[in-house]
Amino acid sequence: MKPIVILFLVFSSFFIVGDLYSQIPQKVVENLKNSVVRILIDSIPMGTGFFVSSDGDIVTNYHVIVNNNLRLSQDGNITSKIYIETKDKKRYEVYIHNYYINKGKKQSELYDYCLLKIKNNRIKFPFLKLGKYEDMKEGQFILTCGYPFGMEEQFVSAGYVSTKCVQELYYQEHVSSGVPVIADTMKRNISYLDITTNKGNSGGPIIVYDKNESILVVGISSFIVTPIGEGAKYILNKIEESKKIGHAELLGINILEEIQKLAEALTYNSFGISGCISIDYFRETYREK
Amino acid sequence: MKPIVILFLVFSSFFIVGDLYSQIPQKVVENLKNSVVRILIDSIPMGTGFFVSSDGDIVTNYHVIVNNNLRLSQDGNITSKIYIETKDKKRYEVYIHNYYINKGKKQSELYDYCLLKIKNNRIKFPFLKLGKYEDMKEGQFILTCGYPFGMEEQFVSAGYVSTKCVQELYYQEHVSSGVPVIADTMKRNISYLDITTNKGNSGGPIIVYDKNESILVVGISSFIVTPIGEGAKYILNKIEESKKIGHAELLGINILEEIQKLAEALTYNSFGISGCISIDYFRETYREK
Amino acid sequence: MKPIVILFLVFSSFFIVGDLYSQIPQKVVENLKNSVVRILIDSIPMGTGFFVSSDGDIVTNYHVIVNNNLRLSQDGNITSKIYIETKDKKRYEVYIHNYYINKGKKQSELYDYCLLKIKNNRIKFPFLKLGKYEDMKEGQFILTCGYPFGMEEQFVSAGYVSTKCVQELYYQEHVSSGVPVIADTMKRNISYLDITTNKGNSGGPIIVYDKNESILVVGISSFIVTPIGEGAKYILNKIEESKKIGHAELLGINILEEIQKLAEALTYNSFGISGCISIDYFRETYREK
Repeated sequence: MKPIVILFLVFSSFFIVGDLYSQIPQKVVENLKNSVVRILIDSIPMGTGFFVSSDGDIVTNYHVIVNNNLRLSQDGNITSKIYIETKDKKRYEVYIHNYYINKGKKQSELYDYCLLKIKNNRIKFPFLKLGKYEDMKEGQFILTCGYPFGMEEQFVSAGYVSTKCVQELYYQEHVSSGVPVIADTMKRNISYLDITTNKGNSGGPIIVYDKNESILVVGISSFIVTPIGEGAKYILNKIEESKKIGHAELLGINILEEIQKLAEALTYNSFGISGCISIDYFRETYREK
Repeated sequence: MKPIVILFLVFSSFFIVGDLYSQIPQKVVENLKNSVVRILIDSIPMGTGFFVSSDGDIVTNYHVIVNNNLRLSQDGNITSKIYIETKDKKRYEVYIHNYYINKGKKQSELYDYCLLKIKNNRIKFPFLKLGKYEDMKEGQFILTCGYPFGMEEQFVSAGYVSTKCVQELYYQEHVSSGVPVIADTMKRNISYLDITTNKGNSGGPIIVYDKNESILVVGISSFIVTPIGEGAKYILNKIEESKKIGHAELLGINILEEIQKLAEALTYNSFGISGCISIDYFRETYREK
Repeated sequence: MKPIVILFLVFSSFFIVGDLYSQIPQKVVENLKNSVVRILIDSIPMGTGFFVSSDGDIVTNYHVIVNNNLRLSQDGNITSKIYIETKDKKRYEVYIHNYYINKGKKQSELYDYCLLKIKNNRIKFPFLKLGKYEDMKEGQFILTCGYPFGMEEQFVSAGYVSTKCVQELYYQEHVSSGVPVIADTMKRNISYLDITTNKGNSGGPIIVYDKNESILVVGISSFIVTPIGEGAKYILNKIEESKKIGHAELLGINILEEIQKLAEALTYNSFGISGCISIDYFRETYREK
């Protein structure tokens, strides 16, 4: 009898498996979405973030917050209003935790993380548990969730960890002469990911989940590998400058502006190769304080 | 003995699973492909459709059929010839079911569906069963099949349901003054999908399948989220107009035409974010009549 | 008791499966990466290749090696230096096996394969086993590994076999008059793939793996389907010619060069539709000799 019983069981599990592998567990998708927020500076959508505590601590990329859209007063105070928006479209005003733009600024910039806190919060939020870089294996199935292209709805995408590696960074100091100087070189653990992310996904969580459907954040969605990359940024800067000189029109078309739009579309959006920075850097900072 | 038996069984199913999850069931792929057709207007490839009955009823998007390529006589009759082409490259002339461009025109346009019928048909065709929007769960594994980029071969792509949501629409009436007026606002159930679709995939079926490998259509592949989107359409229109004025050549290159081609490539093709409209709207219309 | 035991077992395997399907076996990813190499001509990254024997035989695409970057002396000898670089960043100088550029040149060009050998090699390399085109089923889960965008790290991507089909080719002979003549038509077995590949992935292996995690190469990553395709190549050629005439500047921007960069980015990179050529052609040649 034994072999027959075994065959029968194997046969059953065959079908159950067929059914199961056809989806990402709904609980995982739901929990992920409930913890992810849109980030806006003065009502301009800037990117993605996620709750890391029930009292409303939010992590995002440093570059999502500290960029040309963040207005400062003459004495360096932030005059922009920063908001997060949850999945149910509720907005909350947030502020940047002081450590990340002062004492910890250099680290925040290099490892591209930033901590936001909700003003006068009394609500309990769903949040994601922070894992470790070592929880991310090459070949691992991963998910992210975010607001690409300034979409108003969340977009969940799925893929695989492609390559874990160390990236070398050159930290520039903008000295008084105006010429940037390489002040330091540092290394950071990153992963290249075979997943769809685009401009706006920055700051979103890269997650894995286990058999109990519990989620761990292993990285922060931070960059994209594009076909024209650095070259395009050079063009974009050059066009930006030339626009100060005047308009170059051909039959009523502002030709440089159109080329600029096309170059931007190619620069900030995915040809399928995405990247994240290890969550370890943020997690350690967050625990320390 | 019991624990040992259990361990053994679990161990076996481990390997079987490893084998199974490595592919989409061949029967599913085959049935999907056999039911999907290419749609051509006057021999220009326009998009994708699929059989929904054995006697050759075909569904596609309204925008795949009713667009600038569909020639009309002065009294409004269709003078273009519409064809479908099956996987084995056989072509059949089809006509638009009258309901969808007359009494039901407004609904067809809003929910972007259209029913085609084969002229004088006596053949039995393989077809896909219509499911429901509620059969589509966020995180669900889905497939589509179509003819992107005017390819002559079918392209099957796989992905996940990212977000189900309601989209608000403004229905414009083109009144005699020439200025479009918002005549109505309506809502439709859509899904954002983490799957590769491009220009030409429009009208294809979004399917799920169960453990018995039986297929259900849950949506119609209808749109793409792109980085330059509406902005690009504005450019494209402007360029189209300027081309009427004259050629803008630089060293023998028709510069505006080249920019137009690049903008089109970026506008109609996928950066990984696709979308479908619920199959419910079509299914209800189809049953009623 | 029996039903209870069965239920329990099925329940267990449910969870195990949930855990398993969430990743590509690490051994598969590791073995794949260890056998894949970057190919450089005179230190310019050209594409991807992979070991097919322990003594260092490497396969890549013909077009990765024989192209405008390969410098020749006046009497037709190769003066460029060709290198392969393994995952651990070690470089080895290689030479093209004579058969593939002489007696077998026509076949190599048509089926787009080339065999490289390491000069004076004494090292044992990990290598991939060659499978058959028939091992690749439509719907099958596949992997590739390569160096897209000239990346220094390997990028692994995963996807599915979309469509197996026969492609017709026209073999041109460049006769003395300078006008190419169609000398022959040939057919080759290809597959369209739902996977992310970009410029630089050319020459990489398309693999399947079985329940024992053993790998078979079923195709060589060779082409991409793009939205502007042939049209763009025409533009690119025209721009290349016009650049010989002079610079077309608008406000200091070399407008044609920028358009060229954008067209190249759109031409050589993935909108999610990739393609491979059957491994059979190479395998048969390799065994014969």
